[in-house]
Amino acid sequence: MPISIQSRFAFTLDVPTDVLLQFEAAPIPEQNILRSNTDVSRSEHFARVAAQDDIGERIWIRAVGDFEVEYSATVEIERQLADISRLEGLSPHDMPGEAVQYLFDSRYCPADRFQPFVEAEFEGTSGGARVTAIREWVASHFEYVPGSSGPETGAADTFISRQGICRDFAHVVVSLARASTIPARYVACYSPGVTPQDFHAVAEVFLNDPETPGGGTWQLVDATGMAEPCDTVKIGVGRDAADVSFLTSFGPSNFRSSSVQVTKE
Amino acid sequence: MPISIQSRFAFTLDVPTDVLLQFEAAPIPEQNILRSNTDVSRSEHFARVAAQDDIGERIWIRAVGDFEVEYSATVEIERQLADISRLEGLSPHDMPGEAVQYLFDSRYCPADRFQPFVEAEFEGTSGGARVTAIREWVASHFEYVPGSSGPETGAADTFISRQGICRDFAHVVVSLARASTIPARYVACYSPGVTPQDFHAVAEVFLNDPETPGGGTWQLVDATGMAEPCDTVKIGVGRDAADVSFLTSFGPSNFRSSSVQVTKE
Amino acid sequence: MPISIQSRFAFTLDVPTDVLLQFEAAPIPEQNILRSNTDVSRSEHFARVAAQDDIGERIWIRAVGDFEVEYSATVEIERQLADISRLEGLSPHDMPGEAVQYLFDSRYCPADRFQPFVEAEFEGTSGGARVTAIREWVASHFEYVPGSSGPETGAADTFISRQGICRDFAHVVVSLARASTIPARYVACYSPGVTPQDFHAVAEVFLNDPETPGGGTWQLVDATGMAEPCDTVKIGVGRDAADVSFLTSFGPSNFRSSSVQVTKE
Amino acid sequence: MPISIQSRFAFTLDVPTDVLLQFEAAPIPEQNILRSNTDVSRSEHFARVAAQDDIGERIWIRAVGDFEVEYSATVEIERQLADISRLEGLSPHDMPGEAVQYLFDSRYCPADRFQPFVEAEFEGTSGGARVTAIREWVASHFEYVPGSSGPETGAADTFISRQGICRDFAHVVVSLARASTIPARYVACYSPGVTPQDFHAVAEVFLNDPETPGGGTWQLVDATGMAEPCDTVKIGVGRDAADVSFLTSFGPSNFRSSSVQVTKE
Repeated sequence: MPISIQSRFAFTLDVPTDVLLQFEAAPIPEQNILRSNTDVSRSEHFARVAAQDDIGERIWIRAVGDFEVEYSATVEIERQLADISRLEGLSPHDMPGEAVQYLFDSRYCPADRFQPFVEAEFEGTSGGARVTAIREWVASHFEYVPGSSGPETGAADTFISRQGICRDFAHVVVSLARASTIPARYVACYSPGVTPQDFHAVAEVFLNDPETPGGGTWQLVDATGMAEPCDTVKIGVGRDAADVSFLTSFGPSNFRSSSVQVTKE
Repeated sequence: MPISIQSRFAFTLDVPTDVLLQFEAAPIPEQNILRSNTDVSRSEHFARVAAQDDIGERIWIRAVGDFEVEYSATVEIERQLADISRLEGLSPHDMPGEAVQYLFDSRYCPADRFQPFVEAEFEGTSGGARVTAIREWVASHFEYVPGSSGPETGAADTFISRQGICRDFAHVVVSLARASTIPARYVACYSPGVTPQDFHAVAEVFLNDPETPGGGTWQLVDATGMAEPCDTVKIGVGRDAADVSFLTSFGPSNFRSSSVQVTKE
Repeated sequence: MPISIQSRFAFTLDVPTDVLLQFEAAPIPEQNILRSNTDVSRSEHFARVAAQDDIGERIWIRAVGDFEVEYSATVEIERQLADISRLEGLSPHDMPGEAVQYLFDSRYCPADRFQPFVEAEFEGTSGGARVTAIREWVASHFEYVPGSSGPETGAADTFISRQGICRDFAHVVVSLARASTIPARYVACYSPGVTPQDFHAVAEVFLNDPETPGGGTWQLVDATGMAEPCDTVKIGVGRDAADVSFLTSFGPSNFRSSSVQVTKE
Repeated sequence: MPISIQSRFAFTLDVPTDVLLQFEAAPIPEQNILRSNTDVSRSEHFARVAAQDDIGERIWIRAVGDFEVEYSATVEIERQLADISRLEGLSPHDMPGEAVQYLFDSRYCPADRFQPFVEAEFEGTSGGARVTAIREWVASHFEYVPGSSGPETGAADTFISRQGICRDFAHVVVSLARASTIPARYVACYSPGVTPQDFHAVAEVFLNDPETPGGGTWQLVDATGMAEPCDTVKIGVGRDAADVSFLTSFGPSNFRSSSVQVTKE
């Protein structure tokens, strides 16, 4: 069942300004892009560069005045879905190079500080069972409160305040997973279950499927409960929200509006 | 003039434990490894994985008991040296994908917070001149004080306390460069000028050499003044110290000793 | 030349809520309250309690619905004015008990962290000369930017971002003074020079006037340059902004409006 | 049953230095000081000043060289003991001026940040029942780990790491109480149950005893479980550990040793 995406956003640049955009479904094996159309305002400069881990692309523009982005796509999800609670953790020494970086602390995910907590709170669990326990603990102890966090809010703040938005839920899950020595990254995505409809973010963890020889597999985890792995369309990944944003302006910009519509066809 | 390196360190693991090591000169074009020898204690498991940006390798071991690492190498530096103050900054929209990630905030480098500071303090400079101004400002305003910082210390703390070690100097330079929209990363290295001799860390910035068509070039910057680009041997790179450590233990470990000797032959 | 004050503010409480108010000129020896009138909406409960250091009063109300406060006063300033740069610092062991608490770190003023900075930046100065140097350094290195800070912003954040409002300037001065072993507190006040007119905050330091036997004297310091000690009307004092607020609501409240007019008669 | 206290500590000052000491049982109504002896090394200057809230005294010394403090006392506790779980909270508007300051955030107790947490975790409780729930939650979720915290550690750090020493346990209790609109302060004390014997710190909350007309009463709360209110001897109080320390040196000092012995006679 393909997923249909329509997103648009608009901003104004008073002077010629460089802007980094990342809003398109990533053309990766697990996502079959059946159709896609990107329509942006005229700009002085337009260039595509590979995004983190070669998952998706970032777009550099340099423009001035009113700028609009309109994107539509139809995507078929073909990822391997797994019952996360049955997956195993990899021993650190079995982790491939590309997963190692996702064990480390990042801007919004000071994972080391959570080690005593995860050892006490989730004692006796490991691997996928640990991840499931983390997701359930976050889901039941944190409240989704739009406006309760800002661009400086990290997982430590959210852990204390017990409230946030999708970005904050993802940061806490990522931090608690890394504190459990499970590689975890941040995924910007589209998903039809997000209410109200908007750009979304979830966590992704690296676990071992004992039935699939050769190791690790990335699995989506959404503690907000809104995005199902079977209908989540990945835009890009990163250590945390510092790495993946649909709009990063290298100079003053006025954000005017955005709308997102994601449906199952 | 080749650089000769001898380093050794020893630690004890009370139970079988996974440990990540990164201590060898990276075999990259700018470093000609004339000779190298790595000698480690017997371990249950030993594997090499690619390190960040494919610069050097990390070694996974799983071992128990006393563990020793002994490394020696002779390296010829062949990097393009440049007078940094003459290099230009790239416009963001000209930055390649692999440099973009080094514009963002990381665990110990909350660069965004320094934007008003760099704009005021280094007003009128850009590109290499900005980097030179940053290096000189850090060199003259910060004191090198062993023991004044710890594993949680980040660039914001160091900016306040005005003291730290090589790691802290590098974090401040990286943060102020990124706040100036100059990609900057953290480099673990060996260098003969480090006093007392030890593992070292410096910053590296991405600038444009107008005489070299095709763009950007990474340039080493050491605000401690101890490591010259012409005799610095890179081990690995990362966003900041969270990414590059000569020893990361995934369980309790007792560090026993280390010694480093780097000389010009 | 008396100072004339008119201030009003209004807020709405959806359910019966306790609110703490502090907005009146403090009746202390250095301020002769020639005339004053406080007019507040009807409330279920109204009580006055002494404020910090017995300087001024706080008002407890319990009310529901629209609530308005209207205050007017005429105050003659009779404080001892001094050329701060000529005052001396007290040795810690000569400080009276009531000044000692203002040497310590507080919520928004982590003074200890600034010790290496003040020793390096203001080397060779002490006492009033140190305070003058601090005020001038803050005045010339920080920008007054409404909206650049929030309720969580402390002196460490402001020291990094180099911008803020009166509250932030006061926090930095207080922190740098305490780091210099000079007792310093936070003063909520009215002053005619504040532009645009609003509730204001400044720092106050405890120094020794060699011509006045018996010691210490509190002296106002405003690094924003808007409030002169000769025409500043104190409302209350505290360790920092955590202690002194014109409105603290113990439950949800909607702030509707405020206006302040302070003039020299 | 009187409590017998013997404490001593020693430090060295290389140059003449001001030091603030606070180590004696406070002579307050609830503590009958049957006998006390303070013996300190010769000093250039020795002065007593009132400590916070006029509870106990601080001693200023100025000295150089080896300095020793020897203190012994016998104290009879005569405080009103209460079953905290039966006490009521005061409405904010009924709180006296001297309790109001203990509702606010302080250096190590950023209480505001914990409001959503206490509302969710301790829902349905208030007053003494809330305090009992907080004490039990901290006692069962935090581990007493000497060496796990340092002078910069605050309640937010401890809430994340779930481990600390008496000071950290007290900071968390104080923060969660204030977040519940219950005035709470930090108490430095001696108590025979502290293992190993040492200077100790606990929290104290302000509640209403419905059987005692006229209001509020301060009640000791120790989430480490080591100090019973019936045998705890108060030294001094403050907002948090920033205010109460047995030794604060205004210059370099080398701490040599300390010993504490507290017994029930």
